[in-house]
Amino acid sequence: MPNLLIPHDKMKSEFLKILIKTGFNPAKAEQCADIFTINSLEGIISHGVNRFPRFVRNVMDGYIIPDAEPSLISNTGAIEQWDGNLGPGPLNALFSTNRAISLADKNGIGLVSLANTNHWMRGGYYGWHAAGKGYVFIGWTNTIANMPAWGARDVKLGNNPFVIAVPDQKGSVVLDFAMTQYSYGKMEAYDGEGKLLPYPGGFNSKGELTTHPGEVLETCRTLPIGYWKGAGLSLLLDILAAILSGGRPTHEITKSKAEYGVSQIFIAICLDRLSNFPSIGETIQNIKNDIHGSIPEDETKKIRYPGENVSLIREESLKNGIPVNQKIWEEIMTL
Amino acid sequence: MPNLLIPHDKMKSEFLKILIKTGFNPAKAEQCADIFTINSLEGIISHGVNRFPRFVRNVMDGYIIPDAEPSLISNTGAIEQWDGNLGPGPLNALFSTNRAISLADKNGIGLVSLANTNHWMRGGYYGWHAAGKGYVFIGWTNTIANMPAWGARDVKLGNNPFVIAVPDQKGSVVLDFAMTQYSYGKMEAYDGEGKLLPYPGGFNSKGELTTHPGEVLETCRTLPIGYWKGAGLSLLLDILAAILSGGRPTHEITKSKAEYGVSQIFIAICLDRLSNFPSIGETIQNIKNDIHGSIPEDETKKIRYPGENVSLIREESLKNGIPVNQKIWEEIMTL
Repeated sequence: MPNLLIPHDKMKSEFLKILIKTGFNPAKAEQCADIFTINSLEGIISHGVNRFPRFVRNVMDGYIIPDAEPSLISNTGAIEQWDGNLGPGPLNALFSTNRAISLADKNGIGLVSLANTNHWMRGGYYGWHAAGKGYVFIGWTNTIANMPAWGARDVKLGNNPFVIAVPDQKGSVVLDFAMTQYSYGKMEAYDGEGKLLPYPGGFNSKGELTTHPGEVLETCRTLPIGYWKGAGLSLLLDILAAILSGGRPTHEITKSKAEYGVSQIFIAICLDRLSNFPSIGETIQNIKNDIHGSIPEDETKKIRYPGENVSLIREESLKNGIPVNQKIWEEIMTL
Repeated sequence: MPNLLIPHDKMKSEFLKILIKTGFNPAKAEQCADIFTINSLEGIISHGVNRFPRFVRNVMDGYIIPDAEPSLISNTGAIEQWDGNLGPGPLNALFSTNRAISLADKNGIGLVSLANTNHWMRGGYYGWHAAGKGYVFIGWTNTIANMPAWGARDVKLGNNPFVIAVPDQKGSVVLDFAMTQYSYGKMEAYDGEGKLLPYPGGFNSKGELTTHPGEVLETCRTLPIGYWKGAGLSLLLDILAAILSGGRPTHEITKSKAEYGVSQIFIAICLDRLSNFPSIGETIQNIKNDIHGSIPEDETKKIRYPGENVSLIREESLKNGIPVNQKIWEEIMTL
């Protein structure tokens, strides 16, 4: 199926129309359409345009309540606990990021925990948002179970995306990664094209590591990053998300029919109150220079830091339009 | 070389004598000997008894200043920046963990950044310490470069151990992992025994993934956990450690002859001020039960959570003595 190139303003206005039709008020529809469009514009179409139809279906099925607002459960110093009341994940997450920033303004660091929220789409969005305002961001979400514990056959752990963002005027450094080596979406894409994964993505039915995406899709035995290490990190992120928010852990989310009512953590750190603030930009630049000075395995390729490609992708999509699978765009046009 | 079984009190008293001879005052010698002994008792001999001779040499070479105390650089709300003044890493790290706990008592969450400190040995020690007092702990250190950036041939990244601990009266959950899939120590041990690594541990001179530890030891092209993901996480942990503390990033540490003057982060969270505090123990137990209910690949093995084995190892070592390589113990006896 060929790719269309959709101008970002056209994409956003289509999202906006559909969201209003689905029950969002104009302000919320605008903010949600913006997040889905920016995620697409920055190359994360899996959690932008490609995920939009499912988001709309989840609203229509009642898993996402379009006009629900987060409510404050408790505040204690630099920590606030909020209930997302099953509102739209991206709006709840953006709200929580901004609350963490306010807490960081007051306390240097701020932590917001969010219970009963929904899929935040692309976690990196909130990292870029906080970094754009000059704040360090550390955040994560739990998810439905889609990965076995280390040494196990059945799925018990979430892929629990984890985000760290460091602001920098010359290009923020933003890392956004899940605990599974490859997402199901990525493995399905490789499988659809009949390609092998670049590195093993999980175990086959004989319990052997495999680069055949179809074999992993069959067993659901996805590979945690770093084997036992990523399995451990996934568990700890789930425990923290659940206990700090009072929300649901992965095993409870997994009992539901759909992935809704998840738990999330948002930490912001205010840099301009640190004693070394004037030299932070220089420190980051020196670290970037050092990494850029690596000897690449493939001499035609540059070694980049996390997030470095985003502005290039964004520029290209702004100029040429956002590449969208025609079938997905046609589906969106029917919503 | 056979293992000796050294009783923990004998080990500690030997460490104590040597540390006092090396210039530690009795109180600092006691605390340091305790940390090295507990690390050994809990099975982490690589950062306990095995590392003790190098620690003593680093003191004698002037990299570690035994009577240096951390000094406060700045405080802003829930964040404090400290200078470790090149004091003993374990003492500085324990001090900083306790400061983070005090900040968490006041603010719910507390962050201490520590510049110009030294190797903290086993990061998990500080996680267990905080968890033992009922606090969540998140901490990390940067290190000398010992891993290439993703796609590169030369080492630029540290293995930057990362620790997350969650307190639980029925058994705290403590994860302590480095960004390299295997440590150099582990690969040397496999190489010495002529064994292959269980999973690829790096790249050989042809740029291929290999399970031959000797090939990785030759190229120094260690594998980041989760490939590009662990390489990214290592970089972000280094940037944060350096900018939050004002201390040295990995590339500056690497320029020194020895690994000293590193940067560390200590975050503590006070759980008993959260609205859902009464139910946190139950939430953790339910998550543990779910993981324990996994279907193991090998039916004779139990699926465990991070840290679950530590109390078993500790009990056995308390009963039978700590297994120590005879050659290492003989070296310690000459100090």
